[in-house]
Amino acid sequence: MPALDKLKALIAPAKLLTDDSSLAAYGKDWSGQFTPAPLAVALPKTIEQVQAIVRWAIEQGVALVPSGGRTGLSGAAVAANGELVVAFDAMNQIIDFNPYERRVVCQPGVVTAQLQQFAQDNALYYPVDFASSGSSQIGGNISTNAGGIKVIRYGLTRQWVSGLKVVSGTGELLDLNQGLIKNATGYDLRQLFIGAEGTLGFIVEASMQLSRAPQNLTALVLAVTDLDCIMPLLHSFQSKLDLTAFEFFSEQALEKILARGDVPAPFETRCPFYALLEFEALNEDISNQALSLFEQALENGWVADGVISQSTQQLANLWKLREYISETLSHFSPYKNDLSVTVSRVPDFLRDIDQLVQQNYPDFAVIWYGHIGDGNLHLNILKPDNLSKEAFFSKCHEVNKQVFETVQRYQGSISAEHGVGLVKRSGLNYSRSPAEINAMKAIKAVFDPHGIMNPGKIF
Amino acid sequence: MPALDKLKALIAPAKLLTDDSSLAAYGKDWSGQFTPAPLAVALPKTIEQVQAIVRWAIEQGVALVPSGGRTGLSGAAVAANGELVVAFDAMNQIIDFNPYERRVVCQPGVVTAQLQQFAQDNALYYPVDFASSGSSQIGGNISTNAGGIKVIRYGLTRQWVSGLKVVSGTGELLDLNQGLIKNATGYDLRQLFIGAEGTLGFIVEASMQLSRAPQNLTALVLAVTDLDCIMPLLHSFQSKLDLTAFEFFSEQALEKILARGDVPAPFETRCPFYALLEFEALNEDISNQALSLFEQALENGWVADGVISQSTQQLANLWKLREYISETLSHFSPYKNDLSVTVSRVPDFLRDIDQLVQQNYPDFAVIWYGHIGDGNLHLNILKPDNLSKEAFFSKCHEVNKQVFETVQRYQGSISAEHGVGLVKRSGLNYSRSPAEINAMKAIKAVFDPHGIMNPGKIF
Repeated sequence: MPALDKLKALIAPAKLLTDDSSLAAYGKDWSGQFTPAPLAVALPKTIEQVQAIVRWAIEQGVALVPSGGRTGLSGAAVAANGELVVAFDAMNQIIDFNPYERRVVCQPGVVTAQLQQFAQDNALYYPVDFASSGSSQIGGNISTNAGGIKVIRYGLTRQWVSGLKVVSGTGELLDLNQGLIKNATGYDLRQLFIGAEGTLGFIVEASMQLSRAPQNLTALVLAVTDLDCIMPLLHSFQSKLDLTAFEFFSEQALEKILARGDVPAPFETRCPFYALLEFEALNEDISNQALSLFEQALENGWVADGVISQSTQQLANLWKLREYISETLSHFSPYKNDLSVTVSRVPDFLRDIDQLVQQNYPDFAVIWYGHIGDGNLHLNILKPDNLSKEAFFSKCHEVNKQVFETVQRYQGSISAEHGVGLVKRSGLNYSRSPAEINAMKAIKAVFDPHGIMNPGKIF
Repeated sequence: MPALDKLKALIAPAKLLTDDSSLAAYGKDWSGQFTPAPLAVALPKTIEQVQAIVRWAIEQGVALVPSGGRTGLSGAAVAANGELVVAFDAMNQIIDFNPYERRVVCQPGVVTAQLQQFAQDNALYYPVDFASSGSSQIGGNISTNAGGIKVIRYGLTRQWVSGLKVVSGTGELLDLNQGLIKNATGYDLRQLFIGAEGTLGFIVEASMQLSRAPQNLTALVLAVTDLDCIMPLLHSFQSKLDLTAFEFFSEQALEKILARGDVPAPFETRCPFYALLEFEALNEDISNQALSLFEQALENGWVADGVISQSTQQLANLWKLREYISETLSHFSPYKNDLSVTVSRVPDFLRDIDQLVQQNYPDFAVIWYGHIGDGNLHLNILKPDNLSKEAFFSKCHEVNKQVFETVQRYQGSISAEHGVGLVKRSGLNYSRSPAEINAMKAIKAVFDPHGIMNPGKIF
């Protein structure tokens, strides 16, 4: 194919892959619902090569799909329509570090865990963390504004990006905010590219800020007697302690985890919900404060039992109760949703969704877990044994419309942290108004006038 | 004027002012360089009235200027060309508060200090604070992404906005992000309106997040022996303590403050620079840590003297050394600049600018102060007594071009926190590339196709 030969020459010595196994691997993400069919896979090593690829794509009328760790669950990195995949695996270096500024300049293919490790090696901390941090790349994190388990204290990826270099859909390089903390010179275009899923341009370099490393992290797992006790519990702890996490999971989730056999039970008591709180036990005062809050929670009847970590090993074990859920449930062909509402509305929302699924499909098991301190709930509906995968997913699709209508009624988000991609595109209107969607499309046209940057994703 | 009569009827019973003193008062901000000449001043009380005003403006081809506390220094709220001023003084209520979410829903005319007080009354904290917080309004804070003295710990206004209602230049109401913590559904349009100086639309409601109230705030004022000691000093303290402020000012600034006679000297020692550090002394360990860091800094020769606050009265007095500077200097007709570079480049940058002014105008006094922990420096050049105001400002304008060129060379910002407005419009290209400025203009056209929303500001 002459167009590909031309591209190969343009980006040489960077690689251009066209073998079947590369196409299959690079054309999909963890959503797993789309058949990969990319034209080829380019692995640029420099910003100039990325620019050359974009100019080639404009000339040839070929669409581009950016590719990081492909750990996304929404199909944003899927190439199913003859697109050229632009994979950032070969741009995976940390190219600068300034300890005074706690700022790391990363290429987009730096793996999240690599940045976390780099921070740790420098007695600092990169606080955005989630289950796929061992594979996901910084470019992808930024493009989805990744959240995870420490948002209640450290915010989303957005908060840690102090500069972005992006190649827009015209092939131009934009150098946005250059690592500045304060810069009040007009619209902060950097913010637009964060969470844009590569539809406006590709991130080719990022300045990431680091934080002081947390000390003596300590977890409490509490057995919560009733859904309505979660909010006063959160309020009570949050008013006295700087929580680094406030996660939750349901009894059904705990059952599945304990059935694995490799995670110890936190305690004998069983309750409908469990909360995992984490804080820095910087000194004895803080630890005592946490214990007295726990005792108060017991007295108030909000919790029936609890355990506090006394070592890093115990801390790790308690976290397994929460962190192993996603992988454990994956064996039950779950129908997943990643929803959010404002924090105080979580109990009502959760009850409404439970009722909805129960009414429609009384034999479907619903498993809840998530980042309740951020209002972010992962809803998992498990396939009953007697139903085929196809029949199950088709029924779930039916109830999903009502789930999204409920989200809309609560003014919530149909995608709290997983992005929109292809999977949630048809649901975008439940969380964004027609005027907003029109504005987004017009903004896309500003940065991507040829419509070649990850087209068909988000909207 | 029939157009105004029509507007009056449209927004009744809300006020429409046309008297000279209102026009003069509402047509200007604290920049003080422009002659106010608005058409009239509308004081809407509801979102619907704001929408009616925008629709009227489209029909009549009248430009609109939003007006908050008008404490800005860049002329963003100036109406000098027959614009209609839309002042938010009558939309000044806190309309909702959710303690579980620590979220306050504010009308745009809520004064910053009013929100700070509300937070305090509810045992919480609104952390964005600066000299004009007694007059500035939340709508204006958001429109300039206000910074101030606690950014090193709490970030800019952007970080505290979880939802925005805006009326765009088409008169449409956009309800952006609705107070959600996590929402990964496409471009975060909320971020565009933050810092847009009212050029895309007017903020008519905002969800503001609050924080845990800081406890036992303690300040250290240190006499810094040399500019090059500032960065290791910051690094040393920041690696052990969560600083809530790291401010600095020069000996010349201190002289002016002490000459007032109402602020006690922190100590006898004189040094070229002083740093004001603040932290939460949550317990004795932390206070001891601060003292040992101070002793280390003495040993290293970074500082020559220091004082630590032992009471809230002493804390307030130490802060006066920093907070009274702006007002004190205002009596010397200063030529002001609000610049930023990345933190570690501050010393070199400051030296380069000093040299520049010295070379051109050896008789001009340069006074530095600012938020050095954020790389944000306020440069003040004082008028010599023997020079007229006009001659002085015209010479400053000349040297300003070289100041901005230096900023550009350092990839810094010509406006760290004061916005662009009219004052810095001609300097925008020193901090933003032509491609960025074109993108900004195209984005403005998306939200303000008729060009009526604060036209001529920023670019």
